[in-house]
Amino acid sequence: MRGLIEGLNKNFESRIRLGIMSALMVNDSLDFNNLKELLKVTDGNLASHIKALEKNEYISVNKQFIGKKPNTTYSATAFGKIEFSNHLDALEKLIKGS
Amino acid sequence: MRGLIEGLNKNFESRIRLGIMSALMVNDSLDFNNLKELLKVTDGNLASHIKALEKNEYISVNKQFIGKKPNTTYSATAFGKIEFSNHLDALEKLIKGS
Repeated sequence: MRGLIEGLNKNFESRIRLGIMSALMVNDSLDFNNLKELLKVTDGNLASHIKALEKNEYISVNKQFIGKKPNTTYSATAFGKIEFSNHLDALEKLIKGS
Repeated sequence: MRGLIEGLNKNFESRIRLGIMSALMVNDSLDFNNLKELLKVTDGNLASHIKALEKNEYISVNKQFIGKKPNTTYSATAFGKIEFSNHLDALEKLIKGS
């Protein structure tokens, strides 16, 4: 059991970040309201976690127009997908050990 | 994917708490140095997480003497084992969904 938590990534600790990344692993892109609905969290809470994930380049922000309306969606970056998969592998190892 | 993170328990978010509970799920009891060695964390960091888990009654503190020397060990409570297993189940569901 040595180094039990070594593979776990501190940036993905929060349930909300786990939820955002999990959702973006199986959806090419989601907008703010999609994520809010999926995770049942407040706007402020969601926005702060999205910002942190973006700052670490785990997710990218895509800005476009739908008709005349501006629309922002989020996607997991290739780097984000790799890092998150590693985190999930470490979680799975920890779970199997319990 | 609705309510993606509902089953996750905020008290087990931190990697260190995940590590403490995982270790105590497969060991009847461990002392401070055992946990410190397993998790590679500082005394202060470990102590604060142990205190929080104890406050929530997920772990119990056992004080005894080994010869003349006082010895403190920690064990997962029955309640702690149930709550942590539920957390792991929710994590597994999230991982499978990704």
